[in-house]
Amino acid sequence: MPDFSIGVDLGGTNLRIAAISTEGQLLEKIALGVKVALGRDHVIGEMCDAIHRLIDQYREGGRFIGAGIGVPGIIDMETGMMRKSANLPGWAEYPVRDEIERRLGARVFLENDANAAALGEKWLGAARDVDNMAMITLGTGIGGAIILNGKIFYGMNGMAGEFGHVTIEPNGAPCGCGNHGCAERYASATAVVRMAREAIETGHAPALAKIASSDAEFSAKSIYNLAIQGNEDAQRIYHRFGVSLGMLMADLVNILNLDMFVIGGGVVSAWDAFAPPMFAELRERSLVYAATAPEDPVGKKEGASAQIANYTRRKTIITRALLGSDAGLYGAARIPASS
Amino acid sequence: MPDFSIGVDLGGTNLRIAAISTEGQLLEKIALGVKVALGRDHVIGEMCDAIHRLIDQYREGGRFIGAGIGVPGIIDMETGMMRKSANLPGWAEYPVRDEIERRLGARVFLENDANAAALGEKWLGAARDVDNMAMITLGTGIGGAIILNGKIFYGMNGMAGEFGHVTIEPNGAPCGCGNHGCAERYASATAVVRMAREAIETGHAPALAKIASSDAEFSAKSIYNLAIQGNEDAQRIYHRFGVSLGMLMADLVNILNLDMFVIGGGVVSAWDAFAPPMFAELRERSLVYAATAPEDPVGKKEGASAQIANYTRRKTIITRALLGSDAGLYGAARIPASS
Repeated sequence: MPDFSIGVDLGGTNLRIAAISTEGQLLEKIALGVKVALGRDHVIGEMCDAIHRLIDQYREGGRFIGAGIGVPGIIDMETGMMRKSANLPGWAEYPVRDEIERRLGARVFLENDANAAALGEKWLGAARDVDNMAMITLGTGIGGAIILNGKIFYGMNGMAGEFGHVTIEPNGAPCGCGNHGCAERYASATAVVRMAREAIETGHAPALAKIASSDAEFSAKSIYNLAIQGNEDAQRIYHRFGVSLGMLMADLVNILNLDMFVIGGGVVSAWDAFAPPMFAELRERSLVYAATAPEDPVGKKEGASAQIANYTRRKTIITRALLGSDAGLYGAARIPASS
Repeated sequence: MPDFSIGVDLGGTNLRIAAISTEGQLLEKIALGVKVALGRDHVIGEMCDAIHRLIDQYREGGRFIGAGIGVPGIIDMETGMMRKSANLPGWAEYPVRDEIERRLGARVFLENDANAAALGEKWLGAARDVDNMAMITLGTGIGGAIILNGKIFYGMNGMAGEFGHVTIEPNGAPCGCGNHGCAERYASATAVVRMAREAIETGHAPALAKIASSDAEFSAKSIYNLAIQGNEDAQRIYHRFGVSLGMLMADLVNILNLDMFVIGGGVVSAWDAFAPPMFAELRERSLVYAATAPEDPVGKKEGASAQIANYTRRKTIITRALLGSDAGLYGAARIPASS
């Protein structure tokens, strides 16, 4: 039996915990129906109980080497505190890492959730063979992470990778960050539902209106289901999503010129609805992508690609995450083994 | 007398060559009135003649350690060829480095001009004490460079740092790169002149029309001179310049979270006309800047800054280049000493 670590994915609504071997084998995964809304102390208690159960179960077979916890917020790596988290009110400026370390009696690492997902895809997913990549997670908002030379690039104080707040529409929808027209206002689960509600308000989107009134959970997923059934209003929303994401990707490719960009998060399951307009926009807008693109996965396009020779054998790979929603769990579990 | 190297700044219109000691002292600078339009072979001949003269003059005092040449284009670092250069037609796919090395009988390094400027500012300018920074050069277009851990970050194939082609206006002016609304269409010398001509065409910008018809060189500089004399049409152009540059800077700060961003290039001399709207826009649009900004150099602003606590002692410094138009010369001369 192998050595193992614990990976935790703490979201705004869900808490998942896994025991994963140091070779990357999932030993056991627990999805706790914990109400994050019940507050910090309650969640930390439930989390530590579950971790203890997993440790007790697998420690006979191998050594427990520590726990990594992915959280939706900006982490102060020195103090192990969250500086700010829109989705976890009450967690900022609290010694999260130290408190969990105290309860477990083991090394604990706190990491931003997008960074954890990037580490997971780098370890066992799409970016296994790549040392320089970025991860874009499409969920409630847009998360971002940059990996250089195999390690997370944190920037000056851990805030590198705020891709969701790159401006896509200068006079666009206001964002909680203080900006207008941020990418995550157009290419996230929240954005899909907002755009659907706006379409319903026009009175000309009857199918959307119908599922909005009947579907208990009117969500990016139910709107995607409508799109793949051929509903044009739903398709238009995912087209706009793809165009907006393509604009963000063009900026990222032009600025970073990385080997690979991995797109993950829950909404990536709508890939076939948003990827074609995303690639088309990216190819039009990024000279770096046009010069390094693989054969266009959605057919030849005019524009930048026609004007700039594809002069390098190295290609910019843009692909969906392989580990799906487990990327963050695997990545979090990887941290104790690599630290 | 010290050891020395040669730095060359080869632009689309000018060629400058300097002998610089390994301690960073300028020994001699030659500005050649060479017509770059006369072609590659002519320019390389003049350049090598001047370099030989400088070597002969200073080699008695110290060892000549090589030459660095900053060029406006994308370099293939392995072959020493330019892949593409809008401003130097006929230079692409020619073994520039090897040919100059052959003529000089010494080590020669080719480098992108924005990268050279960044190396200069890192060595002797604004970024002396900073290991992670980006350089933005405002000239005919916008050049960009990223330095991480004290070294140029090239990306996958030398194309990292294409800041000038970040989208600022999704439906904006077409750019030669194939995109629309690129930053350099709004915040470069070319953009200033274009915006001035557009203002003249409205028939409501008499002072601009007057200098356009009388000034032998209707330029960003002459329009700046009009702005500081109080002409509102010229001020509006630099305001638009500053807002656009602020949008680009907000994206860069959100994505990269670097310690310092140095703004250089010829148009940086118009700093006092464009910096106030640039900082205002940046503060509104970048949550990362709002959280890490020093005291606002242009006065307190509402917006993101009012909502997000300034919770770190490390500040994002955005400043103008200290070496002015010599940054690229110094940076190019630095390369042989650090390679």
